Amino acid sequence: MAWKLYGYRVMKFNPELKEIKTYEAGKPIELVSREYGIDEKDIIKLASNENPYGVSPKVVQAVKKQLNKMYQYPDDSMYELKNSLATKFDLESTNFIIGAGSDQIIEFIIRAKANKNSPILSAKTTFAMYDIYAKQIGSCSIKTPSHQHNLDEFFKMYKQHNNISIIFLCLPNNPLGESLDKDEVFEFISKIDKDTLVVVDGAYQDFASFKDSKKKILPKELIENFSNTLYLGTFSKSYGLGGMRVGYGVANQSIIQTLYKLRPPFNVTTLSLVAAKSALEDEEFVQHTIKNNFKQMKIYEEFAKNNQIDFIDSYTNFITFIFDDQYSSKKIFETLFKKGIIIRDLTSYGINGIRVTIGTKEQNTKFLQEFEKILKA
Amino acid sequence: MAWKLYGYRVMKFNPELKEIKTYEAGKPIELVSREYGIDEKDIIKLASNENPYGVSPKVVQAVKKQLNKMYQYPDDSMYELKNSLATKFDLESTNFIIGAGSDQIIEFIIRAKANKNSPILSAKTTFAMYDIYAKQIGSCSIKTPSHQHNLDEFFKMYKQHNNISIIFLCLPNNPLGESLDKDEVFEFISKIDKDTLVVVDGAYQDFASFKDSKKKILPKELIENFSNTLYLGTFSKSYGLGGMRVGYGVANQSIIQTLYKLRPPFNVTTLSLVAAKSALEDEEFVQHTIKNNFKQMKIYEEFAKNNQIDFIDSYTNFITFIFDDQYSSKKIFETLFKKGIIIRDLTSYGINGIRVTIGTKEQNTKFLQEFEKILKA
Repeated sequence: MAWKLYGYRVMKFNPELKEIKTYEAGKPIELVSREYGIDEKDIIKLASNENPYGVSPKVVQAVKKQLNKMYQYPDDSMYELKNSLATKFDLESTNFIIGAGSDQIIEFIIRAKANKNSPILSAKTTFAMYDIYAKQIGSCSIKTPSHQHNLDEFFKMYKQHNNISIIFLCLPNNPLGESLDKDEVFEFISKIDKDTLVVVDGAYQDFASFKDSKKKILPKELIENFSNTLYLGTFSKSYGLGGMRVGYGVANQSIIQTLYKLRPPFNVTTLSLVAAKSALEDEEFVQHTIKNNFKQMKIYEEFAKNNQIDFIDSYTNFITFIFDDQYSSKKIFETLFKKGIIIRDLTSYGINGIRVTIGTKEQNTKFLQEFEKILKA
Repeated sequence: MAWKLYGYRVMKFNPELKEIKTYEAGKPIELVSREYGIDEKDIIKLASNENPYGVSPKVVQAVKKQLNKMYQYPDDSMYELKNSLATKFDLESTNFIIGAGSDQIIEFIIRAKANKNSPILSAKTTFAMYDIYAKQIGSCSIKTPSHQHNLDEFFKMYKQHNNISIIFLCLPNNPLGESLDKDEVFEFISKIDKDTLVVVDGAYQDFASFKDSKKKILPKELIENFSNTLYLGTFSKSYGLGGMRVGYGVANQSIIQTLYKLRPPFNVTTLSLVAAKSALEDEEFVQHTIKNNFKQMKIYEEFAKNNQIDFIDSYTNFITFIFDDQYSSKKIFETLFKKGIIIRDLTSYGINGIRVTIGTKEQNTKFLQEFEKILKA
């Protein structure tokens, strides 16, 4: 090695990095195809809560027209997309910050508000990135005892630790699927100090509010009632754009302006801006997605009941099965994986369970057939 | 305001944020069109060093075929693009980290290595994001006295401040255009402690090495000779993909693994991965871009000589004109802007000068005509 010329030494980095584990994403189809020699067409991925109905054809057309603009940096003001969002939610452009997925907004929030002495608070089992971003900056995460959201526990922990910087409410919750009524959420927020930021992560809100209007939390109502709140939305789920990385934060202008200080320029691609804007113009596609989702979810619920498997009542586009000692979620995951069916094992969350995205009718049938074989084996 | 119900108070954020100024990007064509009512077709943007020859038609074709995959999260291992890069640079996949532009790699580096007590070191006038990311984490930037890269000054500052975490060498330099010979760069790095990271930002390296092979710095040679180095590359310039946000860092595996801890999942879009991979397969387009760039640059140099304007010998796809008191760069910028010609004013860098992207023949002719009118006025 030529390094020897000048001496090789392992470089020291900032100490916070030692604690960080890398986020493990759902395995992509290409990887499973490579590893197990299964044709990509035959692989069923129900692991990442992508839209099983794909992309709106109108979005495909809109993006196709802009392919010759790939050389141009994106409009960094995101003028058009922000205007469309403002119209949709009856707010001002200045109430929005757009990120490479709502993930990126979570990162901005945590870097802006949390620190070594001010942890974040979340449900025991919820979106993993809250913790990961907190650890990246040397902060940490306080968790409620229950896996699912329990606002009494949230309030108790909030009072017990008097230094919470941000409370994350993932409504409905990923990866478990439960949600909370708007009324109880608003009552909870009214008891929180105005200097603690309460984030309502609404990545799956449109699924929840379709199923039960009591769960519906409108960004406008939230942020106009509570100056210390931020709403998160995404184009990755019902809007069918998981691959384009577009999400947004909604809050009062003062919070948005502060988060803007952490936004890298050009954080959303030229084509992603076009895709998101045109996705907003095809609400029919979104509604079709959501309706079919809950129609298909019934088949999963029936299956679970018939096979005496516990499941969490889901307000999202996935369902979570919880097993007793008879089954091991890890083993179920592995058996399905080798057959080209990718789901999410919840072992790493301390839960003997699996999370399955509600797919198309064909995907669901195939999955349930193979799943049944395992249960009967 | 409904806020009053629960009381409105301006939220406190982490104190580092106070110091941060938001990066001002080159103004997009759409904005100029809106503000001045000029047709988008008639606007000439020579402000962001985008590829004036647009996107490779092969890339457009490759992306078009994948539009129906926009709903799928990107392959987070970036298997194919990393393999292509590894082949191109005769290195291993594990030597690469891919970011949303090389910008994002700069952010990872600074967050991993710099801190309040360990500033970064760079040339007085160089890529603005080094400073911005340093300020975001409460670190700061030490600058050489000279605007352009001067390695004697770098070494003096490095010795004087014995706590430098990262040295940024932007070769060639944006926004000035000068570059350094590989031999002097390597000699400089050999005198730097192995725990100080030296970053060679090669965003415009392919332009520099085409013009003068002595400037050519190969990632392989750099990182195999010096364990404390990282090379930055981008698809935004000669590869014609500024809007797709793809860049990369090259270093030994140990450094790459550490930076990976700060990488958010899915940081590059599904279509961007396809675009970048296919761009690597059309080197002819890149060479055509670079050849034409320097052919057109001669016209700018001639113009400058004929008009007694100072310019910096440029190893990039832009040229920097420096004015004496006779002219004001701010005024020149504004006059051109109103005519729909967008360039970059360097006033904010403390320089009475402008940076102009070398465009197509037609764009350059139009710019020089209008510029001449101002000089003669």
